[in-house]
This record gives sequence, structure tokens and C-alpha cells, in this order.
Amino acid sequence: MKKISVLGSTGSIGTNTLELVDKLKGRFSIVGLAAGSNTPLLAKQVEKFRPKIVSLKTKEQASKLKDSFRNIPLRIVYGPEGAREVALFEENDIVVSAITGIEGLGPTFSAVRAGLRVALANKESMVVAGGILQDEARASGSEIIPVDSEHSGIFQCLAKERRENVKKVTLTASGGPFFKTPLSEIGGKSVEEALAHPRWKMGKKVTIDSATLMNKGLELIEAHWLFGLNPAQLDILIHPQSIVHSLVEMRDGSILAQLSATDMKIPIQYALTYPERENSLLPPLDLSQVKALEFYEVDEKRYPLLRLARHALDVEKSLPVALNAANEVAVDAFLGGRINFSSIADIIRGILDRHKTREIESLEAVFDVDRETRAQTENLIKQRL
Amino acid sequence: MKKISVLGSTGSIGTNTLELVDKLKGRFSIVGLAAGSNTPLLAKQVEKFRPKIVSLKTKEQASKLKDSFRNIPLRIVYGPEGAREVALFEENDIVVSAITGIEGLGPTFSAVRAGLRVALANKESMVVAGGILQDEARASGSEIIPVDSEHSGIFQCLAKERRENVKKVTLTASGGPFFKTPLSEIGGKSVEEALAHPRWKMGKKVTIDSATLMNKGLELIEAHWLFGLNPAQLDILIHPQSIVHSLVEMRDGSILAQLSATDMKIPIQYALTYPERENSLLPPLDLSQVKALEFYEVDEKRYPLLRLARHALDVEKSLPVALNAANEVAVDAFLGGRINFSSIADIIRGILDRHKTREIESLEAVFDVDRETRAQTENLIKQRL
Repeated sequence: MKKISVLGSTGSIGTNTLELVDKLKGRFSIVGLAAGSNTPLLAKQVEKFRPKIVSLKTKEQASKLKDSFRNIPLRIVYGPEGAREVALFEENDIVVSAITGIEGLGPTFSAVRAGLRVALANKESMVVAGGILQDEARASGSEIIPVDSEHSGIFQCLAKERRENVKKVTLTASGGPFFKTPLSEIGGKSVEEALAHPRWKMGKKVTIDSATLMNKGLELIEAHWLFGLNPAQLDILIHPQSIVHSLVEMRDGSILAQLSATDMKIPIQYALTYPERENSLLPPLDLSQVKALEFYEVDEKRYPLLRLARHALDVEKSLPVALNAANEVAVDAFLGGRINFSSIADIIRGILDRHKTREIESLEAVFDVDRETRAQTENLIKQRL
Repeated sequence: MKKISVLGSTGSIGTNTLELVDKLKGRFSIVGLAAGSNTPLLAKQVEKFRPKIVSLKTKEQASKLKDSFRNIPLRIVYGPEGAREVALFEENDIVVSAITGIEGLGPTFSAVRAGLRVALANKESMVVAGGILQDEARASGSEIIPVDSEHSGIFQCLAKERRENVKKVTLTASGGPFFKTPLSEIGGKSVEEALAHPRWKMGKKVTIDSATLMNKGLELIEAHWLFGLNPAQLDILIHPQSIVHSLVEMRDGSILAQLSATDMKIPIQYALTYPERENSLLPPLDLSQVKALEFYEVDEKRYPLLRLARHALDVEKSLPVALNAANEVAVDAFLGGRINFSSIADIIRGILDRHKTREIESLEAVFDVDRETRAQTENLIKQRL
């Protein structure tokens, strides 16, 4: 029985993971959970899965939870250090890294350094510190298995192919809610409209990133680091049905693709069971019901962030860190009603234009650039108000 | 440098193979060629590729060829024994088995027994003697690599996976030229109309088999033997674009698929270079140009032969041999203008109805059932005229 800690247990990936562990009884058990501020849901998860360690955002939340679980042996910690302690819990075999944004980096790094299997849903870690994480993984023997559906697909298609035979890898994008919206109308779209993703049920941050296609930009950078592919080998196609998640083109003209229903349980389960597979909990995909799978080139006028992400991928060093930080702040400002939809791209472009690219050789350097860029982005947003 | 003999060198697969060998100079050389009656083309192939042994259908054709190549060291043989001798030529590393129909069985069996790599395009061998060929391959260490695009796709998708994790394998069918023809009009379609395949450029026999979908029926039986899959695991979907060749569904809900341009050079090249790959000679597939990939369930009223093939697969033993023999004779009669299109199915159904299924334990038993069924089918056709 493999022992799992879930970082980000009350989010979308976290709750899906727990549902899977519940259904795959006997194969996995939960030993640790790290959540944010959703104490009521975490309490329910503790009731059901009986972990040995949990973490919350603040000391107050932790104290409150302690009151509810006085009589069971449960270590309760909090804050970034708390999440790290869950990641490093001695019984862990697998750490599911599903905290959103750069907050996930610290605990993900700890789990990688400890040589554990890391089921990686926190793509931002790979975007801002891919080189550092891969160096650590090589040294520690950690297996990083992607949970993003696109990367899980690539991982499955690449599994036994020699890397020199791979010509191109294409990630698909649904195109988000504004794929067919007239260009002139996109700028003024509301938070509710941007959150109405046509295919995937996900957290708010990633749903907005899907509407801007920044999500795909981050995934390009993630794929670069996960699979050692150079930028010119990475491509994107719009595929509104979100059934084909990725395509790996070999140099002999064969393309291997991975398809599945649009449910995150499939890549999560694969990351937990790999190299084995377990029966699906979902109805099988019936292609004759889907009828047509469509593919379109990406219109960069519609999705200006994609060009910025491509640029960050080409330059590397600190630029992806700045890209990610500016995006997190800008998306937050959009969700909070402070800026409109098209300003997300304008602000990120403004930040990247003034960013002085430097080498990134440590986690500290990542956090420095992140902190600095967030402050700059906040300032830029204030100037525009 | 790998040495190749091509059985069926003047046919569609044969000429594509030679074109590939020409382009992949330095990796492969041609040592043997077996053709049917197309002496002029074989002579050109001898000029260009300088094999050491060639075979033709008759003694007369062989003598004629001998006159043209008096001054070069070339062994010229003929008939079924000649083809077998090419298959067993001592320098062979790879035998491309691309003689159409049951005629291909003898030389294919010889190459398998000799422990060679067999690039198998002659699906009828696997249909009528799959168990015997696989037993021989296990004993001799022969690698049988499929050349059919669907089976090449399955082979590539399965390579990475444990067989117990495979739930279902789907072969796609273009639907042939009559996919959208009103049912009442199909029966009277002419030879020319049946030969006008919308996607693939192939030999006549396999093109008619595509119009009736018998081709897909034979491929189901072939897949059963090639991959050790049971009949309930094998499925067919109509996919008019012929871009996705096959889909392998894992038990966890992931589907791996293989896609490529509709050109036989791709699976032929893979069978020659496996486990390596070589650069493609074709332009890459651009899915944004294809736009939509469509999938439809098979309408058995439109393709009655598919049910007969399924039945033969379920029963096994001598029934697939009878199915194949009746089909070869009926297709030949249709191509010769002796019967109409819908009679192909009627005749095969009539033959299977009266076939007494028996065990098949040797190649001789296969040839006995084949010979007997051909005679019966000829009689049935004569009775109907």
C-alpha cells in the first residue's frame, strides 16, 4: 500500500485525488494533507481519510482544527513551513503537488529533494524552476510524473520512444470560452464569462489562464523542462473538444496521441499507479458519440499572451519567473474586479518589457524575482486605475 | 546494412518498399525479389537494385528474364517453390511479405520458420494460419512486424503497455467508396466504382475488400493473432479521413492512438527500421489542414461481410480459412465481371453456411480447406450464372 500526501487537498485536483484514493481502497492510503483556508472541508477530509499530519494556512486555523480533533493522533501544522513538513513527512511514498501558483514551489522542491514520487499538478513550479527541480530529481532519484492532462498524454506517448526520434510535440488547447468571440468583444468580458470554461471544471486561476491561453504558454515551458524538448519542438493546436490531449510526432511521420474523457481523475490516477494502470471509475470514451475532433491553428491576435510565453521560453533564465508572477497578480486583479480581461495581457507585456533578465541558480533567486515582479505588477495595476 | 528480400515486389507494397530502400540508401540493400507475372517491371527492379535471386510465376517468364541478364550473377527461379527460395535466401535479414492472398502463406511461413524479421503485409497468412505462424515465430525467434497501417499503429501504441492493462483495440475503416451510397444502390455498383477508393491507393483485391469492409474483418482476425487479443476486445469505427489508424484503450480510460498521412510508406518504413525510426520521406501531417476527424459506428446492414468475419473470428479453426478462400474467389469473380457487388457477400455467406468447421493443425490442413472452399465457391458462382 502506497502512502500519499496531498498538497492542496481542498482544491480541484486535491478533492479528485481523494475521491480516487477512496475508490482504489487497499492500494493507497492518505498520510498527509496540506490545505489553504478551507478548514471545514479539510476537517471532513481528516474524518474520512485519517491522515497523520495536516497543514493549514494560518496558526489560528490550525488551532481551530486542533479543537475538533483532540482525541485522535494528528499532527497539525501551518503556513509555508507546515506545507513543507507535510511534503517531507517520513511515511510519504507519493506527494501530490496541487497547490496553485508559486506557493507550490517550496513543498514541491522538498518532495523532489527527498527522492519521492511527485505527481505534479503545480505547473508553476516547473515553469519558474524547471532546471533546478530536474537537477534535484536526477540527484535524488525522484520521479516527477505530470498530472496536467496534456503532459500526462505526452508522458504516455513518449514512454518508450528514443528522444532523438521525436520531432515535435503538440499540446492541444480547448480555446477557452472566447474561442469564437469576436475579437473586439473579448476585452470587456466579465469574470463570470471568463470562468465559464466550455470543457474542463477546474480552479479559478487555471480557468482564467485557459481563457487567455496563458495556461498553454505555461504548459509549453513545463513540457520543455519535463521532457527535455527544445522550444522549436513544441507546438499548440486549438482542439475545442478537448479529447486529444497531446500529439507526439516521430521523425518517420507517425504521430502518437493520447485521448480520454475530459476528467482530471484520469491523469491523476495514472500518476499514482504508473507504471501500472487501474480500472477507470469513469464511463469509457465513445468516439462515435463525439463524432468530430477538430483542430485549428492558434490565432495569436486572439491570444496575445501566448507570444509572451513563447518569448519567455526562448529567453529562459528569470523571464519565465517574471511571466508567471505578473500573470498571477494580473489574474488575481481580474478576478477581484480591479482590471478588465484585456488588461491582463497589457500588464504582463508591460512587466516583461521592463524586466532585466538575469541568471537563476537557486530557489532563493526564483523567490527574489517573483517577489520583485509581484510588487512591480501591483504598482503597474495601481498606476492604471 | 540490413539485407531485404521482397515477396510481391511488383505490387503496391513491393514498389513502395523499393522506393523506400532507394531513399534510405546505406541502411538497407535488396538481395531478393519475388514477383508474379509483371516481368518488365521486375526487370527494371533488377537493373536498379541488383538482387542476387529473383522469382517469377512461370518457367517461361523466368527463362525470358534470364535472356536479359546473362552477364550478371543472378539466380532466377519460379513458381511457389521459387518464392519460397527467395524467402529462405541465406543472406536475408528481413523478408517483406507482400504477396496478396493465400499464395503468400507458403513463403511467409518459410521466413518465419527461418527466424527472420518478417514485415507482414500479407494479412491473409495471419487470417488463415495465425496460430501456426505464431507458434513457429516463438520457436524460431522470428519478429513479425505488421505493415498494415492499422496494425502498425496498434503495434506502436501497445509497445509500451502491459497486455493486462489493455481493454479494447479499435481499428478504423475509411468506409470505402460506398460509405454514403444509398443502401439500395450499392448492390449494382460497377468494378470501376468499387475500385475508386477515397483515401488509399492500393492493389485491386484489397481495394474491393475495403469497399465491402471484408478488409476490416480480415484485419480483426489478423489483430487477434498478432497481438493475442480476444474477439471481444476488438472493435471497428468508421473514420472517413483515414488519419487515425487505430486506437488502444487502456483500462484506466486513456486511449493511445496512432495517426499519420495515408501513405503505406510510413508503416513499411517502421517495419524495416523498428525499433529505430528514420526521417520521413513525406511532408508532415498538418491536423489544422485536415480540420475534423470524424468517427461513426459501423452499420452492419451496409457491410454484411463484417458480421461473417466476426463469426469466423469467434469460431476460429477452419472457418477463417473458408472465409478467406470464398472471399478471394468471389472478389476475383466480381473483378472479372462475373458477379455483381452484392453477390460477393451472398456467395461468402452461402459458403460459410455449408462449411463443416474442423481443427487446423498444420499448413497442409490450411491448404486443403482453402482448395476445397475455392472449388465450392466456383461451383456456387457457376450455379448462380
